[in-house]
Amino acid sequence: MSEILDLVGIFVFALSGALMGVRKKLDGVGMLVLASMTALGGGVVRDLILNVRPIAFQSLGYVLVPVAATVIVFFWHPHVARVMPAILVLDAAGLGLFCAVGTEKALEYGLNPLHAALLGVVTAVGGGMLRDVLAGEIPTLLYDRQLYAVPAMLGSGVMAALSSYGLHGWPATLAAALLAFGLRITSMRFNWRFPMAKGAGQ
Amino acid sequence: MSEILDLVGIFVFALSGALMGVRKKLDGVGMLVLASMTALGGGVVRDLILNVRPIAFQSLGYVLVPVAATVIVFFWHPHVARVMPAILVLDAAGLGLFCAVGTEKALEYGLNPLHAALLGVVTAVGGGMLRDVLAGEIPTLLYDRQLYAVPAMLGSGVMAALSSYGLHGWPATLAAALLAFGLRITSMRFNWRFPMAKGAGQ
Amino acid sequence: MSEILDLVGIFVFALSGALMGVRKKLDGVGMLVLASMTALGGGVVRDLILNVRPIAFQSLGYVLVPVAATVIVFFWHPHVARVMPAILVLDAAGLGLFCAVGTEKALEYGLNPLHAALLGVVTAVGGGMLRDVLAGEIPTLLYDRQLYAVPAMLGSGVMAALSSYGLHGWPATLAAALLAFGLRITSMRFNWRFPMAKGAGQ
Repeated sequence: MSEILDLVGIFVFALSGALMGVRKKLDGVGMLVLASMTALGGGVVRDLILNVRPIAFQSLGYVLVPVAATVIVFFWHPHVARVMPAILVLDAAGLGLFCAVGTEKALEYGLNPLHAALLGVVTAVGGGMLRDVLAGEIPTLLYDRQLYAVPAMLGSGVMAALSSYGLHGWPATLAAALLAFGLRITSMRFNWRFPMAKGAGQ
Repeated sequence: MSEILDLVGIFVFALSGALMGVRKKLDGVGMLVLASMTALGGGVVRDLILNVRPIAFQSLGYVLVPVAATVIVFFWHPHVARVMPAILVLDAAGLGLFCAVGTEKALEYGLNPLHAALLGVVTAVGGGMLRDVLAGEIPTLLYDRQLYAVPAMLGSGVMAALSSYGLHGWPATLAAALLAFGLRITSMRFNWRFPMAKGAGQ
Repeated sequence: MSEILDLVGIFVFALSGALMGVRKKLDGVGMLVLASMTALGGGVVRDLILNVRPIAFQSLGYVLVPVAATVIVFFWHPHVARVMPAILVLDAAGLGLFCAVGTEKALEYGLNPLHAALLGVVTAVGGGMLRDVLAGEIPTLLYDRQLYAVPAMLGSGVMAALSSYGLHGWPATLAAALLAFGLRITSMRFNWRFPMAKGAGQ
């Protein structure tokens, strides 16, 4: 169950990477590289820090799903772009899921709650940062348009807190993921932004 | 034998990194950083994912060869640039070698063929991607001008397939490397390109 | 003692990352990401290469110090920018400390002196490179304005050499850090630069 949800998140993140490739006029190979980096990058960094072999290099689905997403975008990208609002909702779901699952895995490997939550955030936002850097752009996360990292911090923090109180398993994961998802969706709806320092850039 | 071929590949990749430094008007230190990243980056990422200490931090030659390449380019770069067509042929040889050797090492460490081939591609193209990102450019790989990643995929795939059929050792490595090399050279000669999605970037 | 000095270095590096965020008009989250990457990036890469769990994900201070630095810059960045000359001196101190401590840790984990020195340099300059790449700039290190990598090489090399002659412990670390610090300060004072290759960029 957990792996299926993980693969759904990977599929959605891969779609967003492949679409970025289309916008940047990359060829099919560039689309596949961006799709794979977006989908798998966060989890690979998480596993490297946990000092275990990345799951993406152990399970078949993790390699095939980005390929499938790239093929779909390659042939039907105008349709995919048209349902982009729906994809943004799915992306928010992926964000929630990745931060909760990432925090959970970090706790299993013995990190304390604060570090586990930090690694959950890295899992959720790492792939998107790699995508933006490779595409030659400053990661949108750094502007945090409509709150992107903040929901991941909320979800990871809640996951770590629940676990400290002895609440484990999929209900806790789901609750944390839903909270992150909800904050992300709400801040998209109301265009919430994190403030800048006063007088920045002057 | 395998290490000598590896060092030849590292030397050629380091030359291309140092030359990029000259073009970007970096100083000698910047040239050395780009040369080292290009030459060693792919193998370091491969070894991190395999969860072993990177070979570049165990063997002396891996550190000294990029230094030598940088010194050569620093003092004689007009001559090096003049023989660039020859270097592109050597670079194709390095590409073929790195994907075959990388796949082989991944198989030795117990990855299944698909993941081993993926890691072989990472070994072959990772250093060049790091070089381009550090130099402030979108990795040329993403445009795959004249097929760069595709030959690495071919070589890695053949290496993994041969190994599945029980064919190991340097003849298999050499065959896979030659196939990748041949496809790269041929696509340079005939300017083959991988297609873009229809209507991309509009 | 060693950890306190390490945290001072992390604080100074985090200040420089957060200030870069202000200059780039990032929001508070972007400032925190840049501050953390600058402060922790070099050490995380060092620990990944040593194949141990990064210290940043084990010790509480390593997470809290970048947060504190970001909060300070967020509310008082004009004052922080005003004392920037003092911060550059502290940054030089951090550079010296990080290269010495990084080399020492690498030697402890069994790397030979040359590789340990290389890893010390990576520790000292890695975070700053990540900061610049994320901020969409070519790492200033590659131009090595007023010698930045060279002092790190000196400090790391001296540390490794002292260790080869049986000199360990904090006096050796301090001596190596002071040498790197001194060269960095001197080259800032006299605007020393590393040469470019003749005719570069033409």
